Amino acid sequence: MNKRIVLASYPEGWVSEANFRAETAPMPKPAAGEVLVKNHWLSLDPYMRGRISQQKSYVKGVEIGEVMSGETAGEVVESKDPKFKPGDKVTAPSGWQLYWSGKGDLLTKVDASKVPLSYFLGCLGMPGRTAYFGMKEICAPKPGETVVVSAASGAVGSVVGQLAKAWGCRAVGIAGGKAKCDYVVKDLGFDACIDYKAGNLLDNIKAACPKGVDACFENVGGEILDTVLRLMNLRGRITVCGLISDYNAKEPYGVKMFRSILVNRLKVQGMIVFDWVQRYPEANQALLDLVVSGKLKTRESVVEGLENAPKGLIGLLKGENFGKQLVKLA
Amino acid sequence: MNKRIVLASYPEGWVSEANFRAETAPMPKPAAGEVLVKNHWLSLDPYMRGRISQQKSYVKGVEIGEVMSGETAGEVVESKDPKFKPGDKVTAPSGWQLYWSGKGDLLTKVDASKVPLSYFLGCLGMPGRTAYFGMKEICAPKPGETVVVSAASGAVGSVVGQLAKAWGCRAVGIAGGKAKCDYVVKDLGFDACIDYKAGNLLDNIKAACPKGVDACFENVGGEILDTVLRLMNLRGRITVCGLISDYNAKEPYGVKMFRSILVNRLKVQGMIVFDWVQRYPEANQALLDLVVSGKLKTRESVVEGLENAPKGLIGLLKGENFGKQLVKLA
Repeated sequence: MNKRIVLASYPEGWVSEANFRAETAPMPKPAAGEVLVKNHWLSLDPYMRGRISQQKSYVKGVEIGEVMSGETAGEVVESKDPKFKPGDKVTAPSGWQLYWSGKGDLLTKVDASKVPLSYFLGCLGMPGRTAYFGMKEICAPKPGETVVVSAASGAVGSVVGQLAKAWGCRAVGIAGGKAKCDYVVKDLGFDACIDYKAGNLLDNIKAACPKGVDACFENVGGEILDTVLRLMNLRGRITVCGLISDYNAKEPYGVKMFRSILVNRLKVQGMIVFDWVQRYPEANQALLDLVVSGKLKTRESVVEGLENAPKGLIGLLKGENFGKQLVKLA
Repeated sequence: MNKRIVLASYPEGWVSEANFRAETAPMPKPAAGEVLVKNHWLSLDPYMRGRISQQKSYVKGVEIGEVMSGETAGEVVESKDPKFKPGDKVTAPSGWQLYWSGKGDLLTKVDASKVPLSYFLGCLGMPGRTAYFGMKEICAPKPGETVVVSAASGAVGSVVGQLAKAWGCRAVGIAGGKAKCDYVVKDLGFDACIDYKAGNLLDNIKAACPKGVDACFENVGGEILDTVLRLMNLRGRITVCGLISDYNAKEPYGVKMFRSILVNRLKVQGMIVFDWVQRYPEANQALLDLVVSGKLKTRESVVEGLENAPKGLIGLLKGENFGKQLVKLA
């Protein structure tokens, strides 16, 4: 039998475990051209909040009773697509379930011989590519510039700051709590990291960015964004990748420093990584090279067992995770 | 004697006449390389509010006791620069005064044989070029797209919408009051104009933009911006040219729909026309061609006499002007 988690109800405000329901279902059988995948890892990502919101978002949301959407990394167990054979490691759009069967075209084969399979859901997967294109195409920092990134210890933020360092910039993170900030500076090599829970956000960011902020990679929004806006330099760039502080709020935060966009002639741009799908190989290679050479480090936060995926997502949305949030399925 | 208006005090909130003081001064005498200009027209523009604010803005502000800054159109009366001769029509960075003397390099000679001299402060001057580059380089609308512009009957907005029409777009204005809206549609040829004072802003813009909004040229900010953000299409562009609704507010408006930037992958960019100074001739020619061919119409709101310039600026900031606001000096 297969196990899966479906959406039981739409959350209002904070997500709760009651919004989900575990189910068993018959083991899927691959038809011609299809592949059966046994999932080892499920990725939990902030975008999932948007999928279970009734507000308009990037893509169609999950309906009540449908399997929660999400990406997995796993192993082919049966293949009716000649491009795949049992034992192949793949990432798949499985959703929250132990097994998935579908068209081979939807799978990505990955080489997990040099790096752990789970990395293809994190620094070598969607979050890594999001950091790469958001930095390269929107933040576009020049060597010597200062890049600020919020949720700096997270799956995307940690890559953003390490790319900034690899590209010759000053990297300043913002994260919640001393442990995360210490990790960001000592393990990931950022120049500084501000604990937003410690108060004095404006003064602390200002002190860490003596030449102001040239580029901001925004994952959080709200007061953090409003504060960084005060410190932006002329012709600064802001990649709007996420606004996690708003996702669970019933009323969105009102951004007071919009004026900075005018006065400093900022470019502020929203992004979704799918816009660069043709260029994924470029990002994959660049990120793999950095991982292999030790310039791109990662940390994982693991929840054990599919049944704990809702708990894992709730923790992620509250910032309780520390590094890339995964669910270990096998 | 020369007459001029200086800044007496910085306004807090709304500007008042008491923030200015009229002075007389000796007639300036041009030194070698300098030109004496008699001003016929003084331009009043929303950016002036920023010049007399103590907040950080584009450029250095006006100090207490200094002549208020502003551009004029006038006539050379004496020249010690071989490039100019008496009778030449010019625009000059005179500030609020009847006569100005300074380096010829700071003057722009204009050909007022086909169009009124005052046009070089409006649709053929800084406001026209602002509309041109903000539209061409940031809004970048394709034929068939919908362009929304706030302050649609103003010096910049009126050009924005007429450019949108000239470039094959649907042009929808937002203005205050029925008279302005009627003018924008009937005289300027916009497809629709919404009276923001009439209430139901969201429904009214929605009805005027059945295919959503692809590009927004923002002059006002505040609730108008927040409302348009709700209607932006995927990959829409917003030129942030002005936020006049904030200029006199003691507390800035909090923009609630920032999320639209993320969800719709918008590009939002602040601008100042000086960034394209090398390309002014391109804009000047394009705008002149449109005026001469009757495709770019303009309307002027004239205050008589330098002493009434403060009153004119206050009216402009309150939206009481109707078209390009000028002060007639001679």
